[in-house]
This record gives sequence, C-alpha cells and structure tokens, in this order.
Amino acid sequence: MKVLVVGATGTLGTAVTALLSARHEVVTASRSGKTDVSVDITDPASVAAMYARVGRVDAVACAAGGVPFKVIGELTYADTKGAALDKLLGQVELVRAGLDFVADHGSFTLITGILAGEAIRTGSMASMANGGVDAFVRGAAVELPRGLRINSVSPTVFTESAEAYDAFFPGFPPVDAATAALAYRRSIEGAQTGQTFRVGW
Amino acid sequence: MKVLVVGATGTLGTAVTALLSARHEVVTASRSGKTDVSVDITDPASVAAMYARVGRVDAVACAAGGVPFKVIGELTYADTKGAALDKLLGQVELVRAGLDFVADHGSFTLITGILAGEAIRTGSMASMANGGVDAFVRGAAVELPRGLRINSVSPTVFTESAEAYDAFFPGFPPVDAATAALAYRRSIEGAQTGQTFRVGW
Repeated sequence: MKVLVVGATGTLGTAVTALLSARHEVVTASRSGKTDVSVDITDPASVAAMYARVGRVDAVACAAGGVPFKVIGELTYADTKGAALDKLLGQVELVRAGLDFVADHGSFTLITGILAGEAIRTGSMASMANGGVDAFVRGAAVELPRGLRINSVSPTVFTESAEAYDAFFPGFPPVDAATAALAYRRSIEGAQTGQTFRVGW
Repeated sequence: MKVLVVGATGTLGTAVTALLSARHEVVTASRSGKTDVSVDITDPASVAAMYARVGRVDAVACAAGGVPFKVIGELTYADTKGAALDKLLGQVELVRAGLDFVADHGSFTLITGILAGEAIRTGSMASMANGGVDAFVRGAAVELPRGLRINSVSPTVFTESAEAYDAFFPGFPPVDAATAALAYRRSIEGAQTGQTFRVGW
C-alpha cells in the first residue's frame, strides 16, 4: 500500500513511519519541512496542496495536531480556537479533503488520546479535541463512500515523553510509541471502521 | 438561584426556561432578539457583553449551538469550521468567559446529544461537536475553581421534532423536550460534576 503519514517527525509519527515503512510505501508529511511533503493541517489550502502533490494513496495516517495545555482560567479564546482548528478540525480536514485521493477500500487513521476519557489539570483542550475526533470517526464511518474506513488511535502518555509530562500524568502507566504505532497498522491493514483503538488505557 | 439560559427560544430552551422559571430567577438569552439578552455564542465579544450585562449568576444553562447536517462528501471547510466554532467552541466560550461571573458553587450545563455516541447519515459534524463538548466537560470539571461544577445534557431526538427528522433517525425512540429539561435541573440543583446526562438513550 501507499501510506501518507502526516506528522511523521514527532515521537509517535517517527514510530509509525518506522513500522509502516517495513511493509508499505510511505510518504511522509509534516510542518517541519524535514519530510517528503510539507503540510500545515490548520490551513485547508496547505492540505489541498499536499494531496495534489502526493496523489492517490491507500491510507492516510495522522499523528499530527497540537493543543494548548493550560488550566481553564488561563486559556484565551485564541487558545481554545487554536485547539479546535488544529488537532480537531485539522484532522477532519485531512478526511474531508482526502476523500478524492484515497483509493477504494482505503482508510484514514487519526490521532486522539487518553484525555478523551480521563482528565488531568491543563487537559481540557486535549479532552475537547480528542473527544471530538473520536466521535467524528464514529459519525463519519457510516457514510464514507467506496468502502473507505476510518478509525482513531488513542494512546496514553508515551514512555519517550513520560518524564517530561510526569507531573501532569501522575500514576499513569506509559506505553512506548512503538506500541501505539501498532494500532495504526491494525487500522490500516485490518477491516474495522468507526473504532477508537485505545493503547495503554 | 439566578440562572442564565442561553438558547432559550428553541424547542429545548423553551422547555428548560419553563421548568426552571417555576423555581428560579431565569434570565434568557438567544440570537433571536426575543429574549432578555441577545447573544451570538460564536462571537467572543458578544458572549463577554452578555455576561457584563447579566452580571453574577448561579448557573449557566446552554441549549444553543448549531451544526450543519450534510454527508461528509458535501461538507465544505466552512461547514466544518462553522460546526467547530458554534456548538463546540461557542459553548466552551460560555464557560471560559463565564468563570468570572458564576458564583461560588455555581454550575455550567452544556448541550450535546445522542450523536456523540450513535451515528446517522449527515451526522458527522454533530458527532464531532457533541463528542468534543462531552469530553471538554470531563476535562474542565477537575480544574474549575471555587467549587464550580460542569455537566452536559445529551438527549436523543425530541418528540417535538421527531416527524421532521424521522428519515435521519429511523427507529430512534424520541423523548419530550420537557424530559430533557429535567436533566438541566438535575445538573443545576444536584451535586455532580464532569457528567454527561443522557436522556432517552
């Protein structure tokens, strides 16, 4: 398969790219400029340009999308809007704009996270974005055309970043990013749709 | 208590206003101009002006927030952005901007709906917004100051609109808006926080 990995340079995206490259043709995209293609998922023109350049793919795997981590009393409207337009709407746009580029029976795999279901201080925007994407996946799955599938991967905190985030995730057992990457393979090569694959929680 | 009902003129908002008015001082707000105060929840300046005019309240109850109903192949970016900025971010803004206006031990009650967990054709934006708000509620609950509480009310389709929406909700048993209104009372007068009160599903 030809797989487009968006957000390929982060902790998770690197693990996803490594896993999938062993068995698929992988095209990498990110905001960093260090990938095959550059993309800013918050900009619909950038997403459209990415698809036009990459062309037909069998799967889109997203590990991109930022949210601010602040307690609710410190969030500005720009923060909340940014969270909505980046991790949430940016991933929705990968699907909306990607419909014409993913081959029959292809798939979209989006990234969410444990804060869809659990709560930590400073996590309300992550919760919002993750919960929105997980529910979007369930809603979109029933109406995607041509046998297209869509799932989300929802990991807990990663071993690779557990030390940096330790104070925010006290007592949360971490998982390796490589374990979360397996869920992308499961989504891409498996048959399920409308699912959220939890990893480590 | 002094309760601000946002979206007070819709099917649900009317039922919420009727129920709460019997036991509380209710201030109504909506985009319609037929309420005590006018507000457009997609506009942070309008939300700020509403709170400045209404002043201190004990509870904010929202029954407002629109999303487009289209199959995913017909959604424009303006549609998806509109859904994110209205029912999702508009309600988040009611909380963010309302923090300084809700009295100690007061509450926010937001509106979501069955499409957070179930899927219908044309429902992906409703799913996204509902799932995002439900998860935001769980995330925000753990960090609200001064004993403030937050819950969401998640009804199935209403009896009052069941005929109009029958083709979209085939076989979904409807509930009266008055039954959904009870969940607002439960949220406002009860002790729970971070909860989604499902009504009819």
